[in-house]
Amino acid sequence: MRLAILGAGAVGRSVADLASEYGHDVVAVADSQSAAVDADGLDTDAVLERKAGGDAVGTGDLEDVFETDYDVLVEATPTTLDDAEPGFSHVERALTDDRHVVLANKGPVAERYEDLRALEAESAGSVRFEATVGGAIPVLSTIEDETPQAVTAVRGVLNGTANFILTRMAAEGLDYEHVLAEAQDLGVAEADPTFDVDGTDAALKFVILANVLADGGFSLEDATVEGIQNIPGSALDLAAEDGRTIRLIGEATRDSVRVGPRLVPENSALAVTGTRNIVQFETRHAGSLASSGRGAGGPETATAVLSDVGRLPRR
Amino acid sequence: MRLAILGAGAVGRSVADLASEYGHDVVAVADSQSAAVDADGLDTDAVLERKAGGDAVGTGDLEDVFETDYDVLVEATPTTLDDAEPGFSHVERALTDDRHVVLANKGPVAERYEDLRALEAESAGSVRFEATVGGAIPVLSTIEDETPQAVTAVRGVLNGTANFILTRMAAEGLDYEHVLAEAQDLGVAEADPTFDVDGTDAALKFVILANVLADGGFSLEDATVEGIQNIPGSALDLAAEDGRTIRLIGEATRDSVRVGPRLVPENSALAVTGTRNIVQFETRHAGSLASSGRGAGGPETATAVLSDVGRLPRR
Repeated sequence: MRLAILGAGAVGRSVADLASEYGHDVVAVADSQSAAVDADGLDTDAVLERKAGGDAVGTGDLEDVFETDYDVLVEATPTTLDDAEPGFSHVERALTDDRHVVLANKGPVAERYEDLRALEAESAGSVRFEATVGGAIPVLSTIEDETPQAVTAVRGVLNGTANFILTRMAAEGLDYEHVLAEAQDLGVAEADPTFDVDGTDAALKFVILANVLADGGFSLEDATVEGIQNIPGSALDLAAEDGRTIRLIGEATRDSVRVGPRLVPENSALAVTGTRNIVQFETRHAGSLASSGRGAGGPETATAVLSDVGRLPRR
Repeated sequence: MRLAILGAGAVGRSVADLASEYGHDVVAVADSQSAAVDADGLDTDAVLERKAGGDAVGTGDLEDVFETDYDVLVEATPTTLDDAEPGFSHVERALTDDRHVVLANKGPVAERYEDLRALEAESAGSVRFEATVGGAIPVLSTIEDETPQAVTAVRGVLNGTANFILTRMAAEGLDYEHVLAEAQDLGVAEADPTFDVDGTDAALKFVILANVLADGGFSLEDATVEGIQNIPGSALDLAAEDGRTIRLIGEATRDSVRVGPRLVPENSALAVTGTRNIVQFETRHAGSLASSGRGAGGPETATAVLSDVGRLPRR
């Protein structure tokens, strides 16, 4: 397949880097400033070098990308809320032009799910979004293969930054502010970590899961969300005396989405450590399934994007 | 899709029972004695009642099944080794007739992988076999989505009977013979539990995994296999003093297949309890993924069969 990649952050760059290994060509890469376009296939190493050097990725613009002959638009621009723009318009353009869309951008899938599916229904292209939930962990493909109707709930830890902070607070007896600073130094938390620590990032993922289970009906405002910013170190000490710890746990069913700190047994599957994520699926006929792995990272999320590309039908 | 189900054991019966929920029709069910065939779709409740009552499932025979207009042959007859017959011939007939094949029977996939793929290459039908490894856990689909080249090793616990026995030996301080009898009473171990306790069942699954990673080259005789029959209760006591336990662990890479009892930390992900299974995937770009769940059972394995049916291309 020929990929047009919008977004040259960690995910977009990793998709460009790994695409050929999965047998695909990259015909376009665009960041917010410029675009590189070559219908015969870009020299992705050169594009990535220019980006790394602080130079423009190319001499074209977004319209040049849309006018190229590509098969799949990879939407890896930053997640935005509410109207999910400009990502939503990117997706709309591709589907109107009968191309496939693979999203790593959570915005359109969490905030405008029904609009997205309506555009898909009118298009010869298909929409997939494994990379929006759980990084490298096969979450949406698992639900798809079980069929959504056979999955009654999805629960788990889907934000590695918050999980890392809680793990370190418990392990070292340090307070939240101290561990947050450590996480930022390590690059595990961003300069503005708000969406990770206030539960928004996890909530967007569980909203997406609820939309898949219920075929729409949810956006971020429907989620009940509590973050980890107010957890004192003493709460973790108290939990430990009882053989428990605290994790930022989310749950999605057909009826609701909730994210918040929960007490879990220390040896529970949900008590993943560090930046690791875990998802538990409750199913009608197969009991409980659990999948864990790296929930974030450029290469990790890129494997989810490329996995989706592999599951698209030929155009 | 129209399913023709060979085998009316726990798996075959569950597939017949759940097929309509997944949107499929069952046009044939055969056990070793007889076959029920109806090109317009069988009354699966009636067929299952006859089987439960000890009566013949139908008035037809195997040839009647093959002459029906079906889309997918579900091969759920008992696993056999070496020439993998009669299962292999069933698969051969279906592929020669350009039908799809979904296997729960491990024999053809473990023992005659290259023959199987050669038949598939000549056929308009496709072969899938998620149900042969790990019951309800999405194992082969995960490797397929990552692409086999990106997976460097697969490791884990894939026999619930052996795992149950080891879990109980450790928990209760009982010896092997005692816990095996308990397992048989509970239906967790068969009257003849040999393949479960000597590691053969697990080895067949890891042989299948190696075949997928390396695109062939392995059969059961290539695996290095040790079972759990000789583990004394004292070994588990000794392990516990060191914070460890013993599990029957298998590993498949492109180069080798090994199954044997291993010491693992008590809180390790590999130390699953009871009949639960777990699979860890080492990947090139996404670190380590792990999936756990119910590795056996009629409905559990049927969900894997039906998941495969859902991933088949239209004939």
